[in-house]
Amino acid sequence: MLKPFATAAALFAASQAAHAAENVSSFTLENGLQVVVIEDDRAPVVTNMVWYKVGSADDPRGKSGIAHYLEHLMFKGTDELAPGEFSEIVAANGGQGNACTSYDFTGYFQRIASDRLETVIRMEADRMRDLVISQDDWLAERAVVLEERASRVENSPSALLGEQRTAALYLHHPYAVPIIGWRHELEALTREDALEFYERFYAPNNAILVVAGDTTREEVRRLAETHFGPLDPSVDLPDRERLSEPPHLSPRRVSLADPRVRQPYLSRTYLAPERDSGAQKTAAALTMLAELLGGGITSYFSQELELDEPVALSAGASYRGMALDDTTFSVYIVPTPSVTLEEAEARLDQAIADFLREGVDEEHLARIKAQIRASEIYRLDNQQGLARSYGAALTSGLTVDDVQAWPDVLESVTAEDVLAAAREGFRLERSVTATLLTTEEVSQ
Amino acid sequence: MLKPFATAAALFAASQAAHAAENVSSFTLENGLQVVVIEDDRAPVVTNMVWYKVGSADDPRGKSGIAHYLEHLMFKGTDELAPGEFSEIVAANGGQGNACTSYDFTGYFQRIASDRLETVIRMEADRMRDLVISQDDWLAERAVVLEERASRVENSPSALLGEQRTAALYLHHPYAVPIIGWRHELEALTREDALEFYERFYAPNNAILVVAGDTTREEVRRLAETHFGPLDPSVDLPDRERLSEPPHLSPRRVSLADPRVRQPYLSRTYLAPERDSGAQKTAAALTMLAELLGGGITSYFSQELELDEPVALSAGASYRGMALDDTTFSVYIVPTPSVTLEEAEARLDQAIADFLREGVDEEHLARIKAQIRASEIYRLDNQQGLARSYGAALTSGLTVDDVQAWPDVLESVTAEDVLAAAREGFRLERSVTATLLTTEEVSQ
Repeated sequence: MLKPFATAAALFAASQAAHAAENVSSFTLENGLQVVVIEDDRAPVVTNMVWYKVGSADDPRGKSGIAHYLEHLMFKGTDELAPGEFSEIVAANGGQGNACTSYDFTGYFQRIASDRLETVIRMEADRMRDLVISQDDWLAERAVVLEERASRVENSPSALLGEQRTAALYLHHPYAVPIIGWRHELEALTREDALEFYERFYAPNNAILVVAGDTTREEVRRLAETHFGPLDPSVDLPDRERLSEPPHLSPRRVSLADPRVRQPYLSRTYLAPERDSGAQKTAAALTMLAELLGGGITSYFSQELELDEPVALSAGASYRGMALDDTTFSVYIVPTPSVTLEEAEARLDQAIADFLREGVDEEHLARIKAQIRASEIYRLDNQQGLARSYGAALTSGLTVDDVQAWPDVLESVTAEDVLAAAREGFRLERSVTATLLTTEEVSQ
Repeated sequence: MLKPFATAAALFAASQAAHAAENVSSFTLENGLQVVVIEDDRAPVVTNMVWYKVGSADDPRGKSGIAHYLEHLMFKGTDELAPGEFSEIVAANGGQGNACTSYDFTGYFQRIASDRLETVIRMEADRMRDLVISQDDWLAERAVVLEERASRVENSPSALLGEQRTAALYLHHPYAVPIIGWRHELEALTREDALEFYERFYAPNNAILVVAGDTTREEVRRLAETHFGPLDPSVDLPDRERLSEPPHLSPRRVSLADPRVRQPYLSRTYLAPERDSGAQKTAAALTMLAELLGGGITSYFSQELELDEPVALSAGASYRGMALDDTTFSVYIVPTPSVTLEEAEARLDQAIADFLREGVDEEHLARIKAQIRASEIYRLDNQQGLARSYGAALTSGLTVDDVQAWPDVLESVTAEDVLAAAREGFRLERSVTATLLTTEEVSQ
């Protein structure tokens, strides 16, 4: 499964962590495996997650898609399990499993009755170092991944435009490359490519075990030491120093016209700073900015573009704060039928300019903060979301402390912080504007 | 010295080769060094060139600019020569020297009295494997390269726009990266980076010696065997398989506004096929297309855009055919003061559409072919250009036969070939349109 973009939900998923702070503990095994335990005994279930600090941005040059392809292959056999048996055992024990690959991480999840925790921990430990990929399986699974690309990307003009947009945004950094990989490179991936990647990156010193639910720190430590403890660390782990971007000097535009398009729209994506460990303030301001501009019916864009004098069916903003390297802040507008994309863009730009001129409505900001506090309480029982927020953060350069500090950092954001972040962020020369067009439309 | 783009002159430089075909011979030493000799005894001078099959597109990831930086360092010392002595000896012998780095090659040239040929061959052989880079020199030379970047790129809005344009054109291939390198990576290059690159790529099995002028095949063989013969080949030469581009689906636009801009213009660069060994026909048609559209005052663009109803101070077309991988075909227009860039673009597009509709004027095509034949004769005495055409071709995936066949391939291009290449080539989705703006201008 691919996870190309975090949504606004991440805002809430992360913020609830603070409330559970007293129940979160973390330790590291001798072989480098970091373990995070989130105790929560309200129901007899656990969420078990293994997160690897490797994602598509770590794909070797010319082997795009390998991180995601390997995620698929991880459900093939090991020295102890036959192909497919992993998922069968989870299901037979009443559990649910899943996996996901993003730019910076790859994660494997199970939700299962707490008395079955050892079963899934043992199986995750087994496949961390002892994956077996048979000659039959690798080709078949590559075809599956290619089909996934066809159905999720190539059948969708919007997804295709997204790929072209991201490739145009990043001039140098590997976030330019789609998580699922470029087709021509996917088609050439081999079993050996996958195994080489696996052996290098799948190891206790590059992984984080996150267990949330009805268990204890001691129990998890015992299970982790028993099953993960004997595993050897990888000896050739590269550092995660990726290419950094040269200065962005030119506003870029991309467009895609396709007969399948029924609803044209325009989006603009700006290069933006990510959440940095110990320095999350700008990211918090951008998180608030996205909420203020585009968070639902009371947002600034909704008021200005959808309600007052409607030019948009929908308009919004989003910020992907959780990332290892420079990330994105996006705005979009879907015009009403009588409005051209050119007019829609002008109105969107006007709305941004108006917002910058008017400043932040203190009441609106207070309302969003109240929503966040409410959602923290409301969502505290989302065991999986909580575990996920730790896994994603710890594989994206953040720490347990950063996750726990995040709600307070959000709470401390002032109107001035938001405005400063907006002024710095809305710079056309660091953006790409993308338009999705029907084939009747004449535009570039 | 950088050589970012070949010009239309390449058309002529290459075509003259056929006339000298009987005087061109080629052989390979046991250690892999290819030698090309172009005998020409009309004057007692020789051109000596060593070409390495490595250019900026082979820069390791994150080390952009290293190929060009190393070109500079090659004038530092060796185990036999002090820093700067190479150039001093060339000059003391009445010779001239130079060097150049492009995407696919790095070349070193001397023009000198033919009785001094051994001197320059000996020195080139010496620095092929025995370069010495002192602790003092590498930092000083890095500053020189940074200064070169500042003066040639950063001081020029047009060059800056060119970098952003090329980075937006190539979604994946390393031609996206400037030959001179991104500043932030240049600033981090070290002596060790340069030496590692040198040891891997600078070796007889990755080089071509081209000698043109008043010498003989036997003499050059003797000198090559004496001086280059003892050199060891590189054992870890990577193949030159670079990333290939994913499908281009979205027309892209970039723009740069700068207070230093006095004259706005618009250019459009299309991804285009390069000259392939044994299959140069499409490239020949594109070469002709560039001449037909943009080759001087009688060209289609000049007639339509500069003369009939003037909207352009200048308009033209160019094609960079000599490349290892997918290359570029470009058109541009510099509008007259009363014409906006939008109008200029519409007129340029109209001119392209008119050209495609009207077809190729047979007389115009015949005139261009006659010009090429004339220039071959006229330029036959350009010893250095002739040598250069072989060096550039042989480091860009072509052979001596390809170089010699090129004039005939050009001659055989029909009006239909040109039109077919134009129809296939002028596809907006494989292009980036770049606009250079004064800061007063409102545009994207």
